[in-house]
Amino acid sequence: MSLIMRVSHLGLNTLRDVPSNAEIASHRLLLRGGFIRRISGGIYAYMPLLWKVIKKITNIIEEELEIINCNQTLLPQLHPSELWLKSGRWKNYTEGEGIMFNLKDRQDKEFGLAPTHEEVITNVAAETINSYKQLPISFFQIQTKFRDEIRPRFGLMRSREFIMKDAYSFHANKKDLQIFYSKVKSSYETIFKKCGLRTVSVDADSGAIGDGASREFMVIAESGEDTILTTQSGDYAANIEKAISIPSEAIPLKKAKEELIKTPSQKKILQLCESHALHASQLIKVLLFIAEDASNHKTLVLTCLRGDHEINETKLFNIIASKKIDNIISIRTLEEEDFKKEKIQSIPLGFIGPDLDENLLIESNLSNKMIRIVDTSALELESFVCGANEIGFHKFFSNWNSLKISHETGDIRNASEEDFSINEKGEKQKLFKKKGIEVGHIFQLGQKYSTCLNASFTNESGSLEYLWMGCYGIGITRLAQAAIEQNHDENGIYWPVSIAPFEVIIVTANNQDELQKKMSEEIYNELKELKVDVLLDDRNERAGVKFKDADLIGIPLRITIGRNASKGKIEVLIRYTKELKEINSNDVKKEILNQLKKMHDIDYYD
Amino acid sequence: MSLIMRVSHLGLNTLRDVPSNAEIASHRLLLRGGFIRRISGGIYAYMPLLWKVIKKITNIIEEELEIINCNQTLLPQLHPSELWLKSGRWKNYTEGEGIMFNLKDRQDKEFGLAPTHEEVITNVAAETINSYKQLPISFFQIQTKFRDEIRPRFGLMRSREFIMKDAYSFHANKKDLQIFYSKVKSSYETIFKKCGLRTVSVDADSGAIGDGASREFMVIAESGEDTILTTQSGDYAANIEKAISIPSEAIPLKKAKEELIKTPSQKKILQLCESHALHASQLIKVLLFIAEDASNHKTLVLTCLRGDHEINETKLFNIIASKKIDNIISIRTLEEEDFKKEKIQSIPLGFIGPDLDENLLIESNLSNKMIRIVDTSALELESFVCGANEIGFHKFFSNWNSLKISHETGDIRNASEEDFSINEKGEKQKLFKKKGIEVGHIFQLGQKYSTCLNASFTNESGSLEYLWMGCYGIGITRLAQAAIEQNHDENGIYWPVSIAPFEVIIVTANNQDELQKKMSEEIYNELKELKVDVLLDDRNERAGVKFKDADLIGIPLRITIGRNASKGKIEVLIRYTKELKEINSNDVKKEILNQLKKMHDIDYYD
Repeated sequence: MSLIMRVSHLGLNTLRDVPSNAEIASHRLLLRGGFIRRISGGIYAYMPLLWKVIKKITNIIEEELEIINCNQTLLPQLHPSELWLKSGRWKNYTEGEGIMFNLKDRQDKEFGLAPTHEEVITNVAAETINSYKQLPISFFQIQTKFRDEIRPRFGLMRSREFIMKDAYSFHANKKDLQIFYSKVKSSYETIFKKCGLRTVSVDADSGAIGDGASREFMVIAESGEDTILTTQSGDYAANIEKAISIPSEAIPLKKAKEELIKTPSQKKILQLCESHALHASQLIKVLLFIAEDASNHKTLVLTCLRGDHEINETKLFNIIASKKIDNIISIRTLEEEDFKKEKIQSIPLGFIGPDLDENLLIESNLSNKMIRIVDTSALELESFVCGANEIGFHKFFSNWNSLKISHETGDIRNASEEDFSINEKGEKQKLFKKKGIEVGHIFQLGQKYSTCLNASFTNESGSLEYLWMGCYGIGITRLAQAAIEQNHDENGIYWPVSIAPFEVIIVTANNQDELQKKMSEEIYNELKELKVDVLLDDRNERAGVKFKDADLIGIPLRITIGRNASKGKIEVLIRYTKELKEINSNDVKKEILNQLKKMHDIDYYD
Repeated sequence: MSLIMRVSHLGLNTLRDVPSNAEIASHRLLLRGGFIRRISGGIYAYMPLLWKVIKKITNIIEEELEIINCNQTLLPQLHPSELWLKSGRWKNYTEGEGIMFNLKDRQDKEFGLAPTHEEVITNVAAETINSYKQLPISFFQIQTKFRDEIRPRFGLMRSREFIMKDAYSFHANKKDLQIFYSKVKSSYETIFKKCGLRTVSVDADSGAIGDGASREFMVIAESGEDTILTTQSGDYAANIEKAISIPSEAIPLKKAKEELIKTPSQKKILQLCESHALHASQLIKVLLFIAEDASNHKTLVLTCLRGDHEINETKLFNIIASKKIDNIISIRTLEEEDFKKEKIQSIPLGFIGPDLDENLLIESNLSNKMIRIVDTSALELESFVCGANEIGFHKFFSNWNSLKISHETGDIRNASEEDFSINEKGEKQKLFKKKGIEVGHIFQLGQKYSTCLNASFTNESGSLEYLWMGCYGIGITRLAQAAIEQNHDENGIYWPVSIAPFEVIIVTANNQDELQKKMSEEIYNELKELKVDVLLDDRNERAGVKFKDADLIGIPLRITIGRNASKGKIEVLIRYTKELKEINSNDVKKEILNQLKKMHDIDYYD
C-alpha cells in the first residue's frame, strides 16, 4: 500500500480524446487513463498508476513462487554472444528471426539484449551445481526484457521493452522436472485467479526455446493475437500452432487409371473444383518453402496437403528441424522473385505435383536435394487429383505409389473448426476457435541447454549427467493490459480489485464546500488507518470531471461526498455494476470493508 | 520477509578459495559468499542472497521517498537518439566519454542504453505538465542502468550493469526546487542511516549532468575511488573534483627586472628549484590540453598554475564549457604524438611560457585561436619564473603585465592537504584527505534540460516558463557492496541488520541427532511466527562448515543447537562482536527479539 494517495500529488493525466493510433480498447484506455506514455515505437514509460498495478501483480507472483521454493534473483540484461553461440541461438536470434537487439561494446565485444535467460542461468547452474544433493533448485526474476519487434503494436501487448517474470528449474531426472512443472502449472492458475483474470491453459508449441512439453496460459479476448482450438467441454484446448485434431472425412475420389487432364488457367483449388465437380478434399495441394540454416545454406521444401487443409508453418519448421536440418533458422514461402535471385529454373506454379523433379535445382543457389513432406491426412488419400508439373495440366486419379517419391510424413496442417478431438472417454468432440492473449508459458526443456552449455552433475549412482531443466514465463505488463481487455466498458476500466491501482477513490463533489472537504479528509484518514488502499481526489475540478476520471482509471469503489453530506449522507458507487448506494456517513467503513471483502472473494475464487 | 528459509532450498554456494582477480575485500566476499556470479566483464548475476539485500535496501528507499510524495514509475532503458541529440549529450555519451552502450534496431534507428534518464523524464514532463497548478511533482524508479566502463572493476563498485534509484523533480521556480532538494537530502541521510551505513555528504561537481548545486553522499572507506577533502570538524567536506580551498601562502620572489636565464635540460619544476634555489610556489607551470567539441573541432588550451599546484581537469572542463566552448565533449592532455597528428609546429616542451605564440597553430588541424586560462592563485604572484618558449631558457622575475596575454581566470587547481578552509565563524581550518565510495548524488539541474527539451508550463502570472528541475540518484548495488566494505572482518561479512539477507541463522550442529533436529525446527517455526527473518541451515554438513558459512555470509545472529540441547541449553552468537552466550532454550525468543531490537536501534539512530 502506497503512502501517496492524493490525486494532486499523483500527476494524474487523463486524455479526453481517443488516441487515433491505438487499435484495441485496452491500448486506448492505457493512454487515455495516463497509465503509459509512448517514448518510441513499442517503448513506453510506465506512469505511477500503472506502476501500482505492476507492483500488485509482482507481489502476487512473488508470494506464489516462494511457496514452491523458487528463489528470486536478478540476471544481467546484456548477454555476451559466447553463451548464445554455445546454445546455437545467436544466429537465429540476431539474424534469422532477428528479434534480439545486439551491440558491440567499446572493446568490440558482441552482446545481445536479453529476450530470455536460458543461456545465462544454465551457465550459472553449470558453475554452481555439482551434485544431485543440490537438486531440485529453481530461480526466478522479474525484469525488463527486450524484443526488436518488426511491428510493435497494441501498446504493451507486443512492445519492444516489457516486464517478464521468468523462472528456471534444475532437476536430477525427468520425473522430478515433471513434478515441478505441475507445481508451476498450479501456481500459475492461482496467480492468474488472484489477479482476477479468466484464463485457459492450452497445449503449445515450444518454439525456438525448448523441445519438450509446453503449455500456454491464455486470456480469452477478441483482440487476442493467438488462435486457440478447444472443445465445448474444455477437455481439449491447444494453440492452433500446436493443435492436433482428427480432420473431417475426405470425400473419396473413385480409383481409376491415372489421366492427364487439360486444366487451362485452373491454378486455384476452387477453380479446379468448380470446373470438374471435385471436392477440395480430393485434391493434393503442393506448397513450396525455402529453409535456411545457420550457415545460410538454403534448401527447397515441397509440402503436400489435402486441398481443404491449410499449412501450419510451426509444425513444418519443427519437423524439418527434428528430421532434416539440425541448425535451421528460418523457413519462408518461395516467392516468384526467388527464381531469379536463387537461380532456380522456372517452376510451373499452380500446376506443381508432389513429384516435382529436383533436377531443376542443379544450377541454383539452393541445395541440390529437395525436402519433401507429405501431411499424414494427405497420405491417406487413395486416389486424388494433383498438379502434373506442366502448365495447364493436372493428373486425375493419381496415387502415392504411382508418384514414386521418397518423402517424410507428419502432421503439418492447421487443425480447424471442421475438425474433431477425442476425449479420454473416447468421445468425438467438435472443435471451436477462440482468440487468446498469451500471458504465461511453461516449458519442459529437458537437457537441451544443459547439454549445449555443459551443465552436468553427479547423479545418485555417481556418474555425470546433464541437468534436467524447465523454464516458466509470465508477461507482467501484457497481463496488466489483458486485464483491461477483459474488464472495461464504455466509460473506462474496471480493474479486478486485487490489481487495481487503488481499491477506493474518494471524490469531493465541491472542494469549496468546507463540510464536504472536512468529511472527505476524515473518511480518507479512517480508511487509511484500516489499510484500505484509498485515493483522495482533492483537485479543484468540477465533480463531473472527477467522476469521469474515476470511471476511466477504473478504481473498483468510489465514495462521493456531495450535497447531502450536510444530512450525513454519502454515496458509494460500485464501478463494475454501476450500482449506486446512498449510505449514512457513519456506515462508510463497514460498507467499504464489506464491499472489498466481496470483491476480493470473487477475484480469488471465481 | 521471504518464505524460503532453508539453506537446502537456497542454493548456497560459498567458496573457500579467495578469488585471485578481486582486488578489494568487499568484492572478494561477494564472490566467496556466493552473492554474485560473474557473467562477463563488469556484468554479474545477483544470486538469491544478494537479491534479499537489494530488496531490503529498495524497501527502505521506497518508504522514505513516498514520505516526500515522490511517485514510483518505470522508464524505458532503450532511449531513442533524438532525445539525447536534443539535450546535446548524444555525442559526448557515445563518442566523447563514450560510456553509453548504443545500437541500431532492425529499422536502423539509433538507441542508447540508458545510464540516466533526464531526457526521457523531461520529455514526459513536457507532454504532461502544463500549469503551475500541477507543480511540484516528482518521480522515481529503481532499475538496472548501463555504463560501458572501459575498465570495470571492484565487483559492483564499477560495473557495467548496476541497479540505481533515480528520481526527478519538477518545480515552478528555483526556490521550490531548493526546498525539495533539501527534503531529498534529509531523506537520503535517513535512508543511509537506516541501511546501517556511515556516510558523509560532500560538495560535488555536477559533471555532464547538470549546472547547479550538487552534493554527493560518500561511504568513507580506504578502497574508495573518490578523494574527499574535509576539515576535522566536518564543517567543510567536498569531493576533490569540486573542493575550493585557500592555498598555502606562496614564498614571494623578489621583484626585479625580467631576465632570460639559461636552464639547460631543466624541464621539471624540481630541477629548476634545485638548480636555482627556488620554491615551487615561485614558478608558473604551463600545461597544454586539447579540447574537442561536438562537431569534432579541436582547440589548444594553455593553462597556468603555481608550480606547487596540480591541475583539476574537472574544474578546467567546466570553465571551458561555461566560458568558451558550449558544446565541448572532452579535454585531454596534449601528447607529443599530437604534433604530427594535428600538424602542430614543434613546441618547446618543458620551457613553455604563458605567452606561447598562437601562430604555431596556423597550419595545424586545430582552431587558430588558443584558449588561455590562468589559475586564480597563480595570477596573484607578482614576480615569478616561467618558461621562455625557447628550449633551454626560462624567464626570471617575470610578471603578468610584461607577458601581455589575454586570458580567462578561474579556479582550475586541485585543493590539497596543504590548504585551508574557512568556516562560518571565519576560522581557518586545515584540510584532510579521505577516500570515499559515492553511493548517492543529488543535483539542482535548474532549467538546463527543460530548455533543451522545450518543457514549459504556464506560471502563476500566466506566462510560459521552463520547468525547474532536480535529479537524485542512489547506487543500490554499489551501496550493498559499500556496506560490506564497512562491515567485514577476517571471517567474512557482518551485515547491518536492516539490510542483512537474514536476521538470524539457526545451525544444527549435528543433523543426525534427532533432538537437535527437532529443537531446531521448533525454534525456527517459533521465530518465523514472530516475523523474524530466519534461515535454517538444514544441510548434512559438519558443524564447522556451517559455522564458517554463517560467518562468511554475515547473518547478524547465529543460534547453535548442539551437544547441550539435551540439557535445554543453546548458544547465541552475535556476529559483529563475536560474543557467544549460552542460554536456556526457553529464553530464545526473548533473547533474539532483544538482540534484534538493540541492533535495529543502533542501525537507525547511530
